[in-house]
Amino acid sequence: MADTSKKAAIIGGGVIGAGWAARFLLNGWDVAVAEPSDTARARLDRVLGEARRALPMLYDHPLPREGKLSVHASIAEAVPGAAWIQESVPERLEVKHAVLADIEAAAPETALIGSSTSGFKPSELRAGARHADRVIVAHPFQPVYLLPLVELVGTGRDDPACARAADILRGIGMYPLTVGAEIDAHIADRFLEAVWREALWLVKDGIATTAEIDEAIRMGFGLRWAQMGLVETYRIAGGDAGMAHFLAQFGPALKWPWTKLMDVPDLDDALAGQIAAQSDVQSGHRSVAELERLRDDNLVAILRALKARGQGAGEVLATHDTAPTLDDGPPLTSVRRTVPSDWTDYNGHMNEGRYGQVFSDAADAVMRHVGADAAYVAAGHSYITVETKIAYREETHAGDAIVVETRVVVGQGKKLGLQHTMMRADGTVLATCDQFLLHVSLETRKSCDPLPDVAAAVERLATLHAQT
Amino acid sequence: MADTSKKAAIIGGGVIGAGWAARFLLNGWDVAVAEPSDTARARLDRVLGEARRALPMLYDHPLPREGKLSVHASIAEAVPGAAWIQESVPERLEVKHAVLADIEAAAPETALIGSSTSGFKPSELRAGARHADRVIVAHPFQPVYLLPLVELVGTGRDDPACARAADILRGIGMYPLTVGAEIDAHIADRFLEAVWREALWLVKDGIATTAEIDEAIRMGFGLRWAQMGLVETYRIAGGDAGMAHFLAQFGPALKWPWTKLMDVPDLDDALAGQIAAQSDVQSGHRSVAELERLRDDNLVAILRALKARGQGAGEVLATHDTAPTLDDGPPLTSVRRTVPSDWTDYNGHMNEGRYGQVFSDAADAVMRHVGADAAYVAAGHSYITVETKIAYREETHAGDAIVVETRVVVGQGKKLGLQHTMMRADGTVLATCDQFLLHVSLETRKSCDPLPDVAAAVERLATLHAQT
Repeated sequence: MADTSKKAAIIGGGVIGAGWAARFLLNGWDVAVAEPSDTARARLDRVLGEARRALPMLYDHPLPREGKLSVHASIAEAVPGAAWIQESVPERLEVKHAVLADIEAAAPETALIGSSTSGFKPSELRAGARHADRVIVAHPFQPVYLLPLVELVGTGRDDPACARAADILRGIGMYPLTVGAEIDAHIADRFLEAVWREALWLVKDGIATTAEIDEAIRMGFGLRWAQMGLVETYRIAGGDAGMAHFLAQFGPALKWPWTKLMDVPDLDDALAGQIAAQSDVQSGHRSVAELERLRDDNLVAILRALKARGQGAGEVLATHDTAPTLDDGPPLTSVRRTVPSDWTDYNGHMNEGRYGQVFSDAADAVMRHVGADAAYVAAGHSYITVETKIAYREETHAGDAIVVETRVVVGQGKKLGLQHTMMRADGTVLATCDQFLLHVSLETRKSCDPLPDVAAAVERLATLHAQT
Repeated sequence: MADTSKKAAIIGGGVIGAGWAARFLLNGWDVAVAEPSDTARARLDRVLGEARRALPMLYDHPLPREGKLSVHASIAEAVPGAAWIQESVPERLEVKHAVLADIEAAAPETALIGSSTSGFKPSELRAGARHADRVIVAHPFQPVYLLPLVELVGTGRDDPACARAADILRGIGMYPLTVGAEIDAHIADRFLEAVWREALWLVKDGIATTAEIDEAIRMGFGLRWAQMGLVETYRIAGGDAGMAHFLAQFGPALKWPWTKLMDVPDLDDALAGQIAAQSDVQSGHRSVAELERLRDDNLVAILRALKARGQGAGEVLATHDTAPTLDDGPPLTSVRRTVPSDWTDYNGHMNEGRYGQVFSDAADAVMRHVGADAAYVAAGHSYITVETKIAYREETHAGDAIVVETRVVVGQGKKLGLQHTMMRADGTVLATCDQFLLHVSLETRKSCDPLPDVAAAVERLATLHAQT
């Protein structure tokens, strides 16, 4: 990331603005929100609460210390000193222009100005700006604190403001996608709009209810699209003959009357009422807060599944999830994390097997600390776990912050003995683990002494931990 | 499921037909494939190989014993005795009609006849059929052996043939969605077609490459759509004011020029070449077989993440994944499963922590066997694990079939001691585990004796396992 001040100003405290505030704040940025409405603070607190619960679950290592949050009635108070300014005010061009003028009057000249607009083009936003070339579209997706995508739109793929913005967004764990040329609604919303129009026809014509439309998506192609997009999926359908073969096969279907999209349905009161009523039948037994929680926990589980495989959005996460440097201790703080939603049963209790995973992660942290890291393993050396003994004390739940403290109790030659204590943030002991590891050559598959640097580091720790 | 013969005839051995064959076969049905082409058997074997690897990973319990597969040159040889006949021949109506005539000439009168057509309506297919009311659209999604969705289209939501078909499809782990009225391209393909057209414009106009289109999907709304559909997601955006509020806000955007879909781009050689070239840049470094494997492993991981939460397609899976009845032993075969792709690291080795999960699952199986099941726990009684000791012997990989054999070594009063041995299918011991559990009252949080039935079952097993 560019070496700038880590202050973001968020203009507009609606759900999108609050999502941006949470994303920056939880990644260590100070955040100043400009929002005159009295109810803004309550909404901000609610969204922040959800983000503080969900975002850390994605990571296996701690996020940076949270930044400072302030809320201001005016733009002039919020923007001074900010490196990133993000407007998320209503979609009316005259409102956007007034806000941009206020921002430019008080913001540092170097600050990037992003707009959350779903529809306007940067050329429309920039009209009348004093330093127009730093005004870009930075269009995020709900929930902003979990989904990585941000569409950046400036003057094209080589817009320098987009390049600066991309660095900053990667620094807060997002996936910036710079759009090749400006266009109404950018990329993703064009797809969403096309699907939405088609959905309106399906409801209007009685082909499918809102619930059936949702199942047609999430039981089928929605699952594909969480991990590969449209084109790569179709490439597979083309077989080894490749994309050209697929196009030759699929091409003619374009001429068939498969969509009604030549025409836009009139979203009159009757159709709006029909959709709202069907949606009530489908989802009305849950509050929006419950749906949000459900969505976030599902997204965390899906994102973590992809992270474990290093695929798609999971690759973005894996890159952003950096292991901290440890102190020698004793004890070593080998794990500091939040229990994610995919580690728990229906009742939200952490599954017994995940205790073993936590202690395995603790051992990995000790390995990295003594220099037995990925490169060491790739070179053919490794510690392998021979035996673990776990004593369970207390239950643990999704969202709990947990810590593992580790002592090196044996560290001589090829032998390594670790004693782990898993605790809640309040110090309650949740479980303990005695773990015995042996150093092996991955080539001969036999035990052997570690390389000298690792051996020295292990012995140093064992000596240090024995003294206290 | 209806008590019919479990024989399916699959007409057409392309990728879709092979996917259907795999889905039925791996769920215990006998399958007769009719496919005159010489190359069909090789393609069938390849798809079956992928399905045999991927599908069992979704489940925590064993699938039924695989059915018998036969391949025939003619429809007349394949269809006798079949309860389900599925045609997946090319999308030309005169070909479909000829195939349906051949099917009706040789099939049982009670057999359901499903068509995999993406585009034709059942009324078009039924024209000229002798028993037209059993001919329905049964439109699956690739990969057929992993994705649950099947669109059923007959004469409407109350079509009796669709109801019979739905029962059979649920029995092979799928999600039947009966479409309210027939329409070109049913439901999901209308959405896909709308997005595809929009994608063609984006490439043609230089707004986005194929890779950028895919990222715009899988980094954002694709993740949402894997777990909630379009409407429920938008309902959240409406906030507590509900869907009507969202419609009022979003409605006007329909009038904006957000899509070019009023018009269909000409997929001429230039555009087809551009797409194929961009797709080569994006994905050409991987073979289609590699992409397929990647897709399947990603889908398994996502589906399992949703299964653990009982959400969306994961709920379908959880319902279909039934625990087998165990023999008393000794030993009890407490686990019999395939190591899934989400249990392994980048190198495909099973993570150390998952050994703990396997032994925890083994204990759960013993609990169910002695009657300490979900209802017992819900009534306030439970065994909790106090201590486990695991000795690791060999590495395990994604796709490995594993078995855990368990002996009850202590079973008196509130104490329960289990000894587990995890093995590969060839008998190689992978790990052993000594596990000590205590019976507790969930109300008082104190240890206590189990209820009489459970106590008797535990003591009976302990006595039996001590004798041998």
